[in-house]
Amino acid sequence: MNNELNIISPKTSTERDVLHDLEQLREQAPLVHCMTNSVVTNFTANVLLAIGASPAMVVTIEEAPEFAAIASALLINVGTITTADAHVMLKTAEAATAHGTPWVLDPVAAGAIGFRTGVTHELIACKPTVIRGNASEILAVSGEKSEAKGVDSTASSQDALHAAALLAGTTGAIVALSGETDFITDGTTAIPVPGGHPLMTRVTGTGCTLGATIAAFLPVSSTPLQAAATASAIYARAGKDAATGNEHRLGSFAVAFLDRLSSMGNS
Amino acid sequence: MNNELNIISPKTSTERDVLHDLEQLREQAPLVHCMTNSVVTNFTANVLLAIGASPAMVVTIEEAPEFAAIASALLINVGTITTADAHVMLKTAEAATAHGTPWVLDPVAAGAIGFRTGVTHELIACKPTVIRGNASEILAVSGEKSEAKGVDSTASSQDALHAAALLAGTTGAIVALSGETDFITDGTTAIPVPGGHPLMTRVTGTGCTLGATIAAFLPVSSTPLQAAATASAIYARAGKDAATGNEHRLGSFAVAFLDRLSSMGNS
Amino acid sequence: MNNELNIISPKTSTERDVLHDLEQLREQAPLVHCMTNSVVTNFTANVLLAIGASPAMVVTIEEAPEFAAIASALLINVGTITTADAHVMLKTAEAATAHGTPWVLDPVAAGAIGFRTGVTHELIACKPTVIRGNASEILAVSGEKSEAKGVDSTASSQDALHAAALLAGTTGAIVALSGETDFITDGTTAIPVPGGHPLMTRVTGTGCTLGATIAAFLPVSSTPLQAAATASAIYARAGKDAATGNEHRLGSFAVAFLDRLSSMGNS
Repeated sequence: MNNELNIISPKTSTERDVLHDLEQLREQAPLVHCMTNSVVTNFTANVLLAIGASPAMVVTIEEAPEFAAIASALLINVGTITTADAHVMLKTAEAATAHGTPWVLDPVAAGAIGFRTGVTHELIACKPTVIRGNASEILAVSGEKSEAKGVDSTASSQDALHAAALLAGTTGAIVALSGETDFITDGTTAIPVPGGHPLMTRVTGTGCTLGATIAAFLPVSSTPLQAAATASAIYARAGKDAATGNEHRLGSFAVAFLDRLSSMGNS
Repeated sequence: MNNELNIISPKTSTERDVLHDLEQLREQAPLVHCMTNSVVTNFTANVLLAIGASPAMVVTIEEAPEFAAIASALLINVGTITTADAHVMLKTAEAATAHGTPWVLDPVAAGAIGFRTGVTHELIACKPTVIRGNASEILAVSGEKSEAKGVDSTASSQDALHAAALLAGTTGAIVALSGETDFITDGTTAIPVPGGHPLMTRVTGTGCTLGATIAAFLPVSSTPLQAAATASAIYARAGKDAATGNEHRLGSFAVAFLDRLSSMGNS
Repeated sequence: MNNELNIISPKTSTERDVLHDLEQLREQAPLVHCMTNSVVTNFTANVLLAIGASPAMVVTIEEAPEFAAIASALLINVGTITTADAHVMLKTAEAATAHGTPWVLDPVAAGAIGFRTGVTHELIACKPTVIRGNASEILAVSGEKSEAKGVDSTASSQDALHAAALLAGTTGAIVALSGETDFITDGTTAIPVPGGHPLMTRVTGTGCTLGATIAAFLPVSSTPLQAAATASAIYARAGKDAATGNEHRLGSFAVAFLDRLSSMGNS
């Protein structure tokens, strides 16, 4: 399939598109319902507030499906999933799809362990709008796992892009593949988003909060493809800018990253 | 009822009262038992340490009621409540009241969703010392919801202050209403606490940690009314000071906020 | 027993040993499986990333025992333990020991409350490689509690060191006793690690993340004794350096602490 994949040059998602989407997001302040992992709840809320969205972490069975129906967008991240979480996430995903709430699935470490891989496949059957993951995760959930080495994060971009396009084609979801260059694909075309900085992999949650940021753009961007491209472009720029002068200063880098997200387009 | 409400001028809670309470807190280092939401656990612990209190997050049914009996104060915050949490929180609230441990209820997003609204009313029946919330939450739990628009956070201060006084009158709790100006009321009088900064609404947990800070002052201030006024005054000042130079730098603002809390009265 | 205890001077764990271990850790990037408390999950992940390890928080019964078998090391911290957690932690500890995965037990607040004290003893029966705690915790789990005052953190170093050596002798674990001077003991010898800074006790999680850091060094240091000494020495230095200029600035101190951990040996 990737032989037929049309790689769109970065220019198709222009600086103007990105800033326009960001302006729209700040104006509309979409309510982003997050069911995410216990490591990144605080950082996720602060990232969403920094870009101008309104985060809400609602996680119990009595509330989450009901809330997904009224939220502007939903994020489901399986990073620290428990038995009970799996049940609530499935019911919430069903509710989101039933009520037309766009949602992002982040299959953290899928493929590495049996339980979450099974839950991830059940969640994919609930029709996420976007699936975001790194090369290993996308390879694993696409069923192309056998070509890679389990959770091998050094899986080649080419293999992973093929798998991402395949996953998009079979599920109907936009797939946002994170890496040195991010790729956003609908199965037939792919938008590369270069940039970012290696330091982003050394602060916990930069991937997970990108998933939340994509969710935030879903209600305001023209298409899910554009939402994922905008979110990735904003992240790449904030990460690169925040790294300046903070090469071996991970605490300062994380603070600067939030600073950059909140100042972008404002200063 | 608010026609009869006597608004006390800010001067009644003087600079001297606030600094005296803070000095007492730092001397006594009260043990503050927190049952709070998953988004703000870390920030809550660090805020309590910054002001000089001793935080303890104890959440399981085998421990929490027992611990509430020996703690200096308790915070119950329903922000990310689950079915299991609700049960433990009720038993813990009962234990706190039975053993004379003062406690703060923070009814996050009550009124917006049925489940937590019901739990909140059950918790109120356990007789919290202080109820802290924003306008929407106080309107919702006071039963004045019909006058506002659900979770509408733009509810007028006047309506919310009326509801806060009503809630204080019917429950016997001090009500701490957060907003551009905070109001602390016992049902017949109200202390306005002006100040603060809009940036405080753009870092997750500034409201939730104010609840924890009120709890920390309960064992050291002269009255619960004074405890809530002192905590609010400290927050308003730390928020305003931290905002200087950090208008579009949310990461730096949060760091500066903790810096200000820890340096207040020390430098 | 401590009459016979041979106190090794700090020089036995030389600067060279510490930097060598750190270099090894950065080269091998061990996968550290963490089951820790809800207050410090984010900080723990960021500390592990800062020193060069690869953190993974895996907590559900379907995954944790399986994951402990393949991880490089495991941390179990009972800080916010629930009924369900206790069961998963025991099964995971058993799996780690069965598969030869070295692991650290952090008995937070053991002795203060019955439930976690019982679970802690069950976990100790699963044979942790290292037990890390402050004076009160080590006194409590060693059975020497009667000599101290419950959770009294002012328990004398001498009493606690005796208890630590006894605990090491009876369990076969290395005991890392945290305090103004840390002591690492195998029951017959003890390595004192001086340094650090009082500010470290005023940011939540510096003790808990030391446990995670010891776990990270277990697969790369020559012995568990050396792993605990290296981790403690790195912490003491990072804490001392980060405190410079941040005496009453707890937010900035925490950021500087992560900066120091990530720059150590790199700059």
